[in-house]
Amino acid sequence: MKEQAEFQHYLSETTVFVNGEQVPSDKASISIFDRGFLFGDSIYEVCYGQDGALLFFEDHMERLVNSAQLLKIHFYLSLDEIKDQIFATLRASGLKDAMIRIILTRGESIISLDPNKSFKNNLVTIARPRPHYSDEYYQKGVFLWLGDILRNDKRSVDPNAKSGNYLNNVMALEQAKEMGAYDAIMLNKEGKVTEGTTFNIWIVKNKTIITPPISSGLLAGITRANILKLCQSQLKQVEIKDISIDDLKAADEVFITSSTRKIIPVNKINDIFYGDSIENWPITKGLMLDFDNLVKQQPKEYKYL
Amino acid sequence: MKEQAEFQHYLSETTVFVNGEQVPSDKASISIFDRGFLFGDSIYEVCYGQDGALLFFEDHMERLVNSAQLLKIHFYLSLDEIKDQIFATLRASGLKDAMIRIILTRGESIISLDPNKSFKNNLVTIARPRPHYSDEYYQKGVFLWLGDILRNDKRSVDPNAKSGNYLNNVMALEQAKEMGAYDAIMLNKEGKVTEGTTFNIWIVKNKTIITPPISSGLLAGITRANILKLCQSQLKQVEIKDISIDDLKAADEVFITSSTRKIIPVNKINDIFYGDSIENWPITKGLMLDFDNLVKQQPKEYKYL
Repeated sequence: MKEQAEFQHYLSETTVFVNGEQVPSDKASISIFDRGFLFGDSIYEVCYGQDGALLFFEDHMERLVNSAQLLKIHFYLSLDEIKDQIFATLRASGLKDAMIRIILTRGESIISLDPNKSFKNNLVTIARPRPHYSDEYYQKGVFLWLGDILRNDKRSVDPNAKSGNYLNNVMALEQAKEMGAYDAIMLNKEGKVTEGTTFNIWIVKNKTIITPPISSGLLAGITRANILKLCQSQLKQVEIKDISIDDLKAADEVFITSSTRKIIPVNKINDIFYGDSIENWPITKGLMLDFDNLVKQQPKEYKYL
Repeated sequence: MKEQAEFQHYLSETTVFVNGEQVPSDKASISIFDRGFLFGDSIYEVCYGQDGALLFFEDHMERLVNSAQLLKIHFYLSLDEIKDQIFATLRASGLKDAMIRIILTRGESIISLDPNKSFKNNLVTIARPRPHYSDEYYQKGVFLWLGDILRNDKRSVDPNAKSGNYLNNVMALEQAKEMGAYDAIMLNKEGKVTEGTTFNIWIVKNKTIITPPISSGLLAGITRANILKLCQSQLKQVEIKDISIDDLKAADEVFITSSTRKIIPVNKINDIFYGDSIENWPITKGLMLDFDNLVKQQPKEYKYL
């Protein structure tokens, strides 16, 4: 099967540490009593390394702590122990351009929803070559699908906690793939845009750059924060406000942001067409160049190789 | 640590099979690439055995299939293979009065939300002595907490799919425990009662027995269905309709139902007090007796010992 062969190859490129020790990727496992496995009771981050140094690492660690606080996950491990494992994994991978997934769970416990039964964490770190997204995405944009699956309400499971509960997004992506789209964006119950399955969303209208507020129910993306800062420092017109379907229809440009993708323009959402070339999207194009420069200029504070 | 000692003892009483093979409970593990671990991308059931035979087993298997359909989880295993593992686990446990948790995941895959990357299932079955709940619960009732965490909306992650995404309920239970309560009940965004973290909710008003509809956003409990049938066969007044907070306040009796608990009366929800003895709750008491009889009369169709 194609997917199985793809997975086998994937394993061969992957370096895994579990609770401080390196484990061959095809043997890397976790107790079936781990609450991450039983209930999705875990948090995670995805950081990326460029030229042997982690980018925006402090921001990711801060967000990991924030996710834990939102879900009241106790840290039995110190942040230094977590950082040590992250760096050990990256060093063992030997990858100058890496991505690393950091999963911290509420540990194994008796099978009970009660988080007070927890007495430890499990920490899994997974390093891989940084993904290469097709140049076509950056030059011609991607097609997004806005379906009928609403993003989790923040009064149920707050999307601002980056957790192991991702069925909401799995199902939205499934729907998008069925429609032939690259990925999905999701509304909240008020009909406002929240985020994509693994990225933030932005529109441009009359040269103003707009992205929805965290209160709409989304994860505070680190690229999102960096782009907001970049726009402010360049005195670009930028607004954090709700985006409706009508706003999507009226938008001049649409783009998405995430740590691994940086900025990718959007050429279509359902039957709303925004053009098919980066030349149609001057504001997005400018931001892409500016953000690439920002990334290049990052100090190599968190060197691992 | 108390929780760790409790867990060690728990392991010693637990029989585990993973993908067809028995594994010592302290070594039972799953790939870190399992989508259940990464995203909570799994479904589960809890069945119980009495005197060496599974009760309402077909209903549980039917619900497992329904959960899979709601989440579009493909069965690479046949239902017979799943049943074989369930029975093998129960036989190996040697427990006449058992409970068994059946976890079926979308298998391991490359780390991508896309469910189309899946190419197998992982099946974990966990048998344990059937839990004994304190007689006090049945005689004096339990205290439930109605907090501010809303049950997942069915347009986000349908609560009627019994899945590995349980953070919503973990957080509600955490809040209830903090308030000194036994467990939590949750409202939907319209302010109507849905369900508890692992049970259905019922009220009695003027001798009418009422439970909320599946459309309010809840799991169609098997005990719930059996009690509905029981009431109908006995020509008891029973209604499936929305329950508001005002309805809770005005209720004569409140009780909860689940496969492992059967029927437990409720003595208090927040500051609403319903009495403190089974003698205060005649309808609930009658149902408890009738349901116990129903369970005793079940044919031993699914014998494992």
